[in-house]
Amino acid sequence: MLSNALAYAREHAQMFLASLTELLAIPSVSMEPEHAADMVHAAEWLADYLQRIGMSEVDLLPSDGRPLLYAAWQRAGPDAPTLLLYGHYDVQPVDPLAEWRTPPFTPTRLGDDLFARGASDDKGQTFACIAALEAYLQSAGRLPINVKLIIEGEEEVSSTFLRRFVVEQSARLACDAVLLVDSSMLSPTLPLVMYGARGNCYMEIEVVGPATDLHSGAFGGAVENPFNVLARLLAGLQDAQTRRVLVDGFYDAVHPLQPEEQTLLAGLPLNEAALLHMTGAPALAGETGYSAIERATVRPTLDIHGISGGFTGPGKKTVIPARASAKFSMRLVPDQDPLVIARLVEEHLRCQTPPTVTLTVKTLSASRPAVVDYRLPLMQTVAQAYQAAFGAAPALMRGGGTLPIMADFQDALAAPLALIGFGLPDDNLHAPNEKLHLPCFYHGIEMMVHCLAQLATDA
Amino acid sequence: MLSNALAYAREHAQMFLASLTELLAIPSVSMEPEHAADMVHAAEWLADYLQRIGMSEVDLLPSDGRPLLYAAWQRAGPDAPTLLLYGHYDVQPVDPLAEWRTPPFTPTRLGDDLFARGASDDKGQTFACIAALEAYLQSAGRLPINVKLIIEGEEEVSSTFLRRFVVEQSARLACDAVLLVDSSMLSPTLPLVMYGARGNCYMEIEVVGPATDLHSGAFGGAVENPFNVLARLLAGLQDAQTRRVLVDGFYDAVHPLQPEEQTLLAGLPLNEAALLHMTGAPALAGETGYSAIERATVRPTLDIHGISGGFTGPGKKTVIPARASAKFSMRLVPDQDPLVIARLVEEHLRCQTPPTVTLTVKTLSASRPAVVDYRLPLMQTVAQAYQAAFGAAPALMRGGGTLPIMADFQDALAAPLALIGFGLPDDNLHAPNEKLHLPCFYHGIEMMVHCLAQLATDA
Repeated sequence: MLSNALAYAREHAQMFLASLTELLAIPSVSMEPEHAADMVHAAEWLADYLQRIGMSEVDLLPSDGRPLLYAAWQRAGPDAPTLLLYGHYDVQPVDPLAEWRTPPFTPTRLGDDLFARGASDDKGQTFACIAALEAYLQSAGRLPINVKLIIEGEEEVSSTFLRRFVVEQSARLACDAVLLVDSSMLSPTLPLVMYGARGNCYMEIEVVGPATDLHSGAFGGAVENPFNVLARLLAGLQDAQTRRVLVDGFYDAVHPLQPEEQTLLAGLPLNEAALLHMTGAPALAGETGYSAIERATVRPTLDIHGISGGFTGPGKKTVIPARASAKFSMRLVPDQDPLVIARLVEEHLRCQTPPTVTLTVKTLSASRPAVVDYRLPLMQTVAQAYQAAFGAAPALMRGGGTLPIMADFQDALAAPLALIGFGLPDDNLHAPNEKLHLPCFYHGIEMMVHCLAQLATDA
Repeated sequence: MLSNALAYAREHAQMFLASLTELLAIPSVSMEPEHAADMVHAAEWLADYLQRIGMSEVDLLPSDGRPLLYAAWQRAGPDAPTLLLYGHYDVQPVDPLAEWRTPPFTPTRLGDDLFARGASDDKGQTFACIAALEAYLQSAGRLPINVKLIIEGEEEVSSTFLRRFVVEQSARLACDAVLLVDSSMLSPTLPLVMYGARGNCYMEIEVVGPATDLHSGAFGGAVENPFNVLARLLAGLQDAQTRRVLVDGFYDAVHPLQPEEQTLLAGLPLNEAALLHMTGAPALAGETGYSAIERATVRPTLDIHGISGGFTGPGKKTVIPARASAKFSMRLVPDQDPLVIARLVEEHLRCQTPPTVTLTVKTLSASRPAVVDYRLPLMQTVAQAYQAAFGAAPALMRGGGTLPIMADFQDALAAPLALIGFGLPDDNLHAPNEKLHLPCFYHGIEMMVHCLAQLATDA
């Protein structure tokens, strides 16, 4: 059964690629209202595909125009284990569009890479799972275990619907293991299993000064410039030297890194030189006392994502803008609570805000960090599948990114959970020229085929 | 001759308004290349108008697509004094367009105000001068004195051509007095004569970190975020408490305010309450140790005008942008040299920039401050003309804004000079909903009629 499924996967590689290309051409940007129809289109495309390959149950759950796709095949019998797979079909916005070398929704193959928004995050990875299911269902008429599949359309906008669904419909999602397929390997020959994810607290602040934009010639010096205040507020969030977040209580719930995990991290090929190469930065920077990979995975951080207001066109305009705003977010680690952090940050900012302006603080999203015991048997099962498909055992680490539903799945399902994937660090996630490395895609399909077989064997 | 000219001015008020409306409908935004044709159109409209009313010499000097208009009438005889009048026909960009209540280039009268970009700065004021010349030329066939008129199209973009012209063609501009007509009164019943202007040093800086936009989940904490650095650099330019600019040497050339001028300023109806009302800010702010009006006129300052980069759309995107940039400028007072200040600021910023990013610093423009002796007879002449037209003697102060050519005129022409105007502090210069208060426009025409007569009498 395994060898037939593998043979099917290899024989149909070009067909899988063609189907993925169709899916990538649908601009399912969950964040932008003008793509509402595309969101439904992408969800329906997937539902139709899953029905055609033989999933016995396919449901589209409306979620504010970004349907949640639930599919299942549960005919392996009550004694067979049940695996819950998770992926998402929504993608990030494409701006800055001018920096794309190929149109983001015209998937373009260049050598071994397929360029398109969502190619890696997460349509390509999700589709690798679907292809593995197809390989079994079409070659053997069945799967080796029971499988439930969740593909959401709100990963890039906080997973609001799914997070409620997981709590309210936890019985429907009952399973023996969860694999979240939305992650990167370390290199095309070094897979990675992640046993944690950082949380995120995303905030937007606005500083309002004069009632209207003013001319700096008429009032400059006598009236507060919202940008001058905003710069001070943002600069005051982080120490210039140690890069520690200066908000009182920010680190209170952070656990010190255990020596065992420190060793695990130090053993990875992710030293400073590697990160320098991956980022193209003149030099790395980060919190004093931690290695670069520790800073990027197990330590909390704060990043400003955008600042707006005033005059930013060509040339010069001497305006004192009435308002200035900034978006920033903090990656959080266990056991930082994003809502507590949001409150602390707001208090800190309010204390620093002079009475010459008014400050508005909004929390745009709050996602809890999560960590799983990396010594669970599930990690071994997954490792064997990677070994079989990629010829290499995966490294183990906590991820620096955020999967809002990871903590929710943990709470609701009480099943072991791992974060896996087939992306690469240079896939340009959330950036121009996102791509999928096709050898990873093809090996990813095989890895999932092996994984299903291995879960049946281990049961 | 004076009474006929005044009668003409009053009888033709509606015609002047109609002509000004035509001029305001031409979107002569000097800063935006897409308005190149409009610049030429506005200049030609003015040249044509000046020819029709009887100016004996009208020249359009090409200036990189923003022609400089020179006109003269020199038939008052060699013993009559010569007045040089200055105005400009270029206007500021209109953004943010959404905040305009009426279309910026569809002049719209609401009550006593005419709303349009450039209505006050400076088409309305310039046209008031032209209307006064017309009143004499059409009612008497001559002017009481010799007049030269410069109307430039580059005031909002650093007056590059005019500044060279003033030096190279100073003989052509030889005169006995200069009036720069590009300013505001304190209220519709309180005129203002300015005897100085602040300089300006406008800079743009860019901070570049990683080679491309990165995902803060993948690299946040380990790579420098250009925005985090930019916020620190900008915050580090000014002391949070005293609001003093923290650049070494910034204040070295600043003269302490003389008690006589301090008294002059304190006597103006520009106290904190007035400035609060004018700006609509929750509270005023500024350099410790100075009154609000001192801060806005005779003290140097620093204002951030715009910050760009990263993600600023709706929703959230967890990007570490590859680059972030900011525009800011400093208003300067005698004897600060804008090029020296630019160098000091660049040195300061470079010292504060960590090796984790690269910094680019550009000086977009550098204009010298200027001050004239406010006890010169010209000030009295002008005051009498204001008294006659507005029924009130003007206040005297230095202006907080910048007229790049003021210092150049002083150097090249060795003639007394004053900055006058018919705008109002709430005209929304450089901001949405710019307007001209029509009673000021009509009285402004009469003031110029009186001024020409008074200069003939005083000679």
